[in-house]
Amino acid sequence: MTGGYGIENLPLGAFAEPSGAPGGIAVRFEDDCVALRPLAAAGLLDDAGLPRSVLEADNLDPLLAAGRAAGAALREAVADLLHDGRADRARRPIGSVGLLLPFTVGDYVDFFASLEHATNVGRLFRPDGEALPAAWRHLPIAYHGRAGTVVVSGTPVRRPAGFRPGDGAPAFGPSRALDFELELGVVAGGPATAVGEPLGIDDVAERIFGVVLVNDWSARDIQRFEYVPLGPFLGKSFATSISAWVVGLDALDRARVAPVTQDPPPAPHLRPADPWALDLDLEVLLDGERISAGNARGLYWTFPQQLAHAASNGAAIRPGDLFASGTVSGAERGSEGCLLELTHNGAEPLVLAGGAERSFLADGDRVTLRARTADGTVALGDVTGMVVQNEREGAPGALSQDD
Amino acid sequence: MTGGYGIENLPLGAFAEPSGAPGGIAVRFEDDCVALRPLAAAGLLDDAGLPRSVLEADNLDPLLAAGRAAGAALREAVADLLHDGRADRARRPIGSVGLLLPFTVGDYVDFFASLEHATNVGRLFRPDGEALPAAWRHLPIAYHGRAGTVVVSGTPVRRPAGFRPGDGAPAFGPSRALDFELELGVVAGGPATAVGEPLGIDDVAERIFGVVLVNDWSARDIQRFEYVPLGPFLGKSFATSISAWVVGLDALDRARVAPVTQDPPPAPHLRPADPWALDLDLEVLLDGERISAGNARGLYWTFPQQLAHAASNGAAIRPGDLFASGTVSGAERGSEGCLLELTHNGAEPLVLAGGAERSFLADGDRVTLRARTADGTVALGDVTGMVVQNEREGAPGALSQDD
Repeated sequence: MTGGYGIENLPLGAFAEPSGAPGGIAVRFEDDCVALRPLAAAGLLDDAGLPRSVLEADNLDPLLAAGRAAGAALREAVADLLHDGRADRARRPIGSVGLLLPFTVGDYVDFFASLEHATNVGRLFRPDGEALPAAWRHLPIAYHGRAGTVVVSGTPVRRPAGFRPGDGAPAFGPSRALDFELELGVVAGGPATAVGEPLGIDDVAERIFGVVLVNDWSARDIQRFEYVPLGPFLGKSFATSISAWVVGLDALDRARVAPVTQDPPPAPHLRPADPWALDLDLEVLLDGERISAGNARGLYWTFPQQLAHAASNGAAIRPGDLFASGTVSGAERGSEGCLLELTHNGAEPLVLAGGAERSFLADGDRVTLRARTADGTVALGDVTGMVVQNEREGAPGALSQDD
Repeated sequence: MTGGYGIENLPLGAFAEPSGAPGGIAVRFEDDCVALRPLAAAGLLDDAGLPRSVLEADNLDPLLAAGRAAGAALREAVADLLHDGRADRARRPIGSVGLLLPFTVGDYVDFFASLEHATNVGRLFRPDGEALPAAWRHLPIAYHGRAGTVVVSGTPVRRPAGFRPGDGAPAFGPSRALDFELELGVVAGGPATAVGEPLGIDDVAERIFGVVLVNDWSARDIQRFEYVPLGPFLGKSFATSISAWVVGLDALDRARVAPVTQDPPPAPHLRPADPWALDLDLEVLLDGERISAGNARGLYWTFPQQLAHAASNGAAIRPGDLFASGTVSGAERGSEGCLLELTHNGAEPLVLAGGAERSFLADGDRVTLRARTADGTVALGDVTGMVVQNEREGAPGALSQDD
């Protein structure tokens, strides 16, 4: 996949100068980063009708608070400047700047919205029980992840240490089952909702500022040992990578399709008047080689359902809250969104082009997630990350339960 | 319990003027709120050696970032002013101001650190299995809660709606099993640790700015239906109440005692050189009547172990991160920290002084958590909250799965 960053897209992000100084917010156009601070200072973005403090901020936080319509107005104003060349002086080659985490993550919620993923994982983690949890078809199951370790695409990911199950006492050391998870995420915008006031499902779309890709890195051995009864904790909390660019939900109008049929029908507060899913082709690359290809349209629980559920108990939604779909897996072999499923928990290792095998990730592996619309015009921001060795491995004095 | 806010304590918080305008940070002394902004403006807090921006902030965020020693220096400077009367003009009766959430919660982690609580809940939720999860004695099990719905003591708590399990399809409606959970929480201070750099257990105490009480309100019916396999979500995320006052860890030196013996011995990275627990008497009041009395010293996993575990995979710890203990229950009847345990899941309802019975909380119930040192000199900030009716209950058009 190439392209996808033309005038139809114009995703928003934040960058740093080569010196490390914050450069402010930016739009991606083709292979350039378009800095908005100088355009705002010259009065060229006045058409967007936004306060200068929003346009001159170091990241998207104030723009997210201003809401989805503010983002759309800004992208439109930038499109005009790009069209007639007035933005040219603010264009910088992407490679010449550093891309920052585009916004401060409020709460990070991770769903379990793919029927195929939930079924596959259930079979592997709970071989003696029902693959699908009893509640799964009634509500979009989710948990809160760690907001403070959400990092921007490109950030190296150190292999985490943790307790791994074994025959006797658990051993503490670097994970031996490090995995990626291919997910979509939506970023909330607009003023915070009031605690105690649920958000109706037909009001959710106005609260979705934009869409990112999410790699919810997972240490399967750590996760498996710790997750009963309170869910994943250290198996996930070491790092979660997201796109440097937030694609406006409006830019994805062309990708809206009818979602899959749900059985049983969802409860009334999870039934939108006009349901939609996103038709986005997805792929995962390992050191540049494609190891998974699927599509997001098959997600069982849609984003409006996910957010309406998360708010249905009265929980407030704040700008900057990140809601991720959970691993997106398809029904066909090769369309699964993580190695746990692609390799059947290591029983069927991937054989890479050079002959190397992978059950889980090796140190030095570079994982890239990609997504774009079927017509190729709009791409989400790639998410890449390289696995870095945990120095504890094999080192003298390495910690283990046997010490 | 009364008292506990003398010169030995001086906990920190933030308040609002009767107009609603932020009043800045404050210290509690006896029954007064001591406003620090006017004292700082008069130069009277210069001895603390803190930037004016820390002293004139609307809440404790900058002070938390400055760290535990900064908090101790500030409390010492205020003690000097109280001693000789120079702080008198900044003293305001507590009842004349509004108390605000004292700091912005970064990530909120909730542990499961009480052996008695974990055992009791395991028996009730999983009667056919082992009461204690396999990993429980090897590591302090935890999950991430919702930071955005942490509220200050005094905030009313609306009964949440959610899916309740039933004989057939689950019903969606207001919880019928609303509970409190008596917990201790510690607030992290100092600069954020680096992602990928675990915090050693003997460095944890320097990262603990102070201590609060936490009521982790829980809807047991919602929780029970949703929690497999990713843990609690909507059953907890509607509200979590914390003290308005953060007690400096230094003020609790007098409460440090040896923790309980752990079997098996913990892994090396969870073995502190100088282990400590907090000897704090705890009680829960329902509309002023005491319904539980216990002590925090029996917690199996200590706070240094909890934080060292949370950081052991390389997760960063940021100022404002909140780590709660999980429900603190004792071994004796009447020392359990939630109604689920106190009433054996409703099988043995509490009979209140007026003759009313409670299996779970009723609308209008006011729950208060209290804690103080055995000598009575240092109290944590009370946490109170009243349950507010969910208007959906019985209302025409109330949502249910049968619609």
